[in-house]
Amino acid sequence: MLWMMEFTPALNPESEAPLYRQLYQNIAERIRSGSLAKGKRLPATRELAGLLGVNRATISAAYEILENEGLISGHVGRGSFVTGEGGGPSAAIDWGSLLERGEAPSSTPSAEFSKDVISFVMSRPSRALFPLDDFRASCAAVLKRGNLPDILQLGSPSGYEPLRRRLWDDARAQGLAGPGDDLMVTNGCQQALDLAARALLRPGDIVLVEDPVYTGLKNLFLGHGARLSGIPVGPDGMDMAQLERALERERPRLIVVTSNFQNPTGATLPLAARRALLDAARAAGVPVVENDAYGELRYHGEPVPALKQLDEHGGTVLLRSFSKISFPGLRVGWAVGPKPLIDRMRQAKEASDLHTDQLSQAVLLEFLESGSLEAHRARVLRAGAERLAATLDACARSMPAGARWTRPEGGMNVWLRLPAPLDAGDLLPRAQNDGVAYMPGRYFAVSRVDRSALRLSFAGLEPDEIRRGIEILGKIVRGEIASSSRSSEPAPAMV
Amino acid sequence: MLWMMEFTPALNPESEAPLYRQLYQNIAERIRSGSLAKGKRLPATRELAGLLGVNRATISAAYEILENEGLISGHVGRGSFVTGEGGGPSAAIDWGSLLERGEAPSSTPSAEFSKDVISFVMSRPSRALFPLDDFRASCAAVLKRGNLPDILQLGSPSGYEPLRRRLWDDARAQGLAGPGDDLMVTNGCQQALDLAARALLRPGDIVLVEDPVYTGLKNLFLGHGARLSGIPVGPDGMDMAQLERALERERPRLIVVTSNFQNPTGATLPLAARRALLDAARAAGVPVVENDAYGELRYHGEPVPALKQLDEHGGTVLLRSFSKISFPGLRVGWAVGPKPLIDRMRQAKEASDLHTDQLSQAVLLEFLESGSLEAHRARVLRAGAERLAATLDACARSMPAGARWTRPEGGMNVWLRLPAPLDAGDLLPRAQNDGVAYMPGRYFAVSRVDRSALRLSFAGLEPDEIRRGIEILGKIVRGEIASSSRSSEPAPAMV
Repeated sequence: MLWMMEFTPALNPESEAPLYRQLYQNIAERIRSGSLAKGKRLPATRELAGLLGVNRATISAAYEILENEGLISGHVGRGSFVTGEGGGPSAAIDWGSLLERGEAPSSTPSAEFSKDVISFVMSRPSRALFPLDDFRASCAAVLKRGNLPDILQLGSPSGYEPLRRRLWDDARAQGLAGPGDDLMVTNGCQQALDLAARALLRPGDIVLVEDPVYTGLKNLFLGHGARLSGIPVGPDGMDMAQLERALERERPRLIVVTSNFQNPTGATLPLAARRALLDAARAAGVPVVENDAYGELRYHGEPVPALKQLDEHGGTVLLRSFSKISFPGLRVGWAVGPKPLIDRMRQAKEASDLHTDQLSQAVLLEFLESGSLEAHRARVLRAGAERLAATLDACARSMPAGARWTRPEGGMNVWLRLPAPLDAGDLLPRAQNDGVAYMPGRYFAVSRVDRSALRLSFAGLEPDEIRRGIEILGKIVRGEIASSSRSSEPAPAMV
Repeated sequence: MLWMMEFTPALNPESEAPLYRQLYQNIAERIRSGSLAKGKRLPATRELAGLLGVNRATISAAYEILENEGLISGHVGRGSFVTGEGGGPSAAIDWGSLLERGEAPSSTPSAEFSKDVISFVMSRPSRALFPLDDFRASCAAVLKRGNLPDILQLGSPSGYEPLRRRLWDDARAQGLAGPGDDLMVTNGCQQALDLAARALLRPGDIVLVEDPVYTGLKNLFLGHGARLSGIPVGPDGMDMAQLERALERERPRLIVVTSNFQNPTGATLPLAARRALLDAARAAGVPVVENDAYGELRYHGEPVPALKQLDEHGGTVLLRSFSKISFPGLRVGWAVGPKPLIDRMRQAKEASDLHTDQLSQAVLLEFLESGSLEAHRARVLRAGAERLAATLDACARSMPAGARWTRPEGGMNVWLRLPAPLDAGDLLPRAQNDGVAYMPGRYFAVSRVDRSALRLSFAGLEPDEIRRGIEILGKIVRGEIASSSRSSEPAPAMV
């Protein structure tokens, strides 16, 4: 049954595909690839549900599909057994070998748990805060407009022009765009990153990224055939000395930096480091992609100018999005940067999907122009400040000596490092069992794996849930430390 | 002034970026690249407007931006002159050399003309037919739902589950999906093509496509580093003998085929050819991408089963979309195919943009389930039949002997070949001047350029506009033939 332990990491968290489908796919792939051989017994639904911390019905649903497809068969009282490789009639195409090339994204734990699990897994806003009436009012205003047929008709790869113009005017007013710049609308920051990669990367190119970094960013660049070089992130963001060395030695094609409230660490790059980064990048002739999905979510402290604002030499493209400050289900973000790059990204956009959905672009413009976005942001900032404070307080109260965590001034994530010799990944099944879930640090690792670390995404949880969740986690951690100090040599000091 | 002639092909049609921006960008790029040297005089606005068949205000708007950016300067009575390379302060990044690699998509004529030009340029539905009240009702129903917060929250790369399930059930019921298949939602067919390319292609791979073929498909695969091999399309679709030869000799990675009402020719692959294609692809072990954006737009004749329906060996992925039968401004399509491929496409989707916009997914599901889509489709089919008939009748009435055109049974496009020695691209400026525009055949060419050909996209025009437009075109063509037979040797017979 040891293979069962691998189920947890093989489910995909940030995606929200229903868990039963993920489980089903996971098992089906193992059967087709032969790693789960014919005749093997699957764990009982109750057993697997307990291990994964999900409802038994979820497991049953997955097994049912497997059975319908002839991959397993169930025998009352004896359990379910692998019966074949499914797939229907004889396959003409050897999909396995056709698809083998290319880095499949590394899988990550599931975002879906039974109701009793307090999940710090997803870096996303709280749905309880969505201002549904304001959103409805924005939709209603758009639907009444005379230009509704334009919204429904084929649009421009640059974006819905009224939105593009508004974003451009704002960017100009904020000093984020100069005369050599242009702006285009994208499907959130994720697509803007993808388009920048399509415009700039050749397979084998080196990309400098923070280490640890958001899994979706890692997978995206690896999928384009890039080699990633991780620059360690401390409480003050990327390590500038290491960045400068890497620029000299590795001749990277691109630097990608999350300037504010970095995912997963929550770190913000200070002003001096921003200037140093721009100087170093300029000297090396390397463009900077400033990924700033979280910048508008500052709960306290002074805002720091964007790299794009500080860059007087046209080497930076800034990516922003409505997702984190309004509705992630609507995929609208934008990129502001040097015209030649934006031109190429626009061509890549047209090849990718023609243009961004115009209904959502029009609705978000109305949400912005009606003042609803600003009102919503004020509520989100109050709620975020409260949730961040609850997270930091609970860590201080519940975590044992030796634990370390970041103290972000905004965003959605706190990075927690457990005392040695604990491994946050090893602890996860037990944590889920006890009613709390998080993302182990190893999913964010680029060049260095920090097994002690984990990400706490607090924005989607109520302060009370946060306190209870971290209390549970603290108990587990203290228990583990007690038992490890009894059973082994003293752990080395943490540095 | 000869360089002016190149303006027309350098503007981009299917994209709808405002013409003034396209013009501005076009000229700015020429100045920055040095192909328009400092000191050179730009054509007067009136002159350029006449040549391009657009409003003078459009030209003035483009010149104004160029002037604001210090790229040109205007002198009353003398005209506008190239003054510099703009771009503000000294650039740190050599964007020109960073971006030089990679095939920039070939540019195509503009979709935006002065009101007086009857434009057959865009393959898109008529906005006059959009059922605005039904659309508003679908939005209202979605906004009232209890699951609105789920729609606004981060979603799944597989698609909004209620829509995905409905599409899956329909696909199963229609025999389009078997037990080895899966379905995912995409941002229209364009993104589905892109995801299939990301999942399957390595740079340098050969892809078999129809010749001529939709420009957006060509640019997409070229952008992924593929080499395209064009299989000629006749009135009955791809030439099967040549396809079989190409499969043997060229060892392609992939076949992409538009089975119904192909863009640009309007051709539909007959049943026997579908079976032959599947047999050949299966024998060669090559997967088939069935691009079927137009399949639901059959105006007369018997429907032919999809390749996906006929393929019993799991080698085909079928791409469909709401765009052509409802609202292209909402970017929702889907792909049904073998699970291993859909799994990999889903990973690529997650890297590309996390998931498709959920507001539009929910609205289109409601539009479908309320019966509005079927009612709209019935209206679109009546209107399309009328417009196609008007196109074919007008060609028969207005075109001289020696002209040939396809007779599609649906879709949005007719392919017209002018009598030798006419070149449809050369004729375009004159046609625009006389009040009609179209896409010259060369923009669709893969391996063979047919300069006599042009695409008439009729779906967005009223029957009366179609008749007037083709009448104008017929006059020009007849006039050109008369003058060319006076001024040169007799043209060879057209074969």
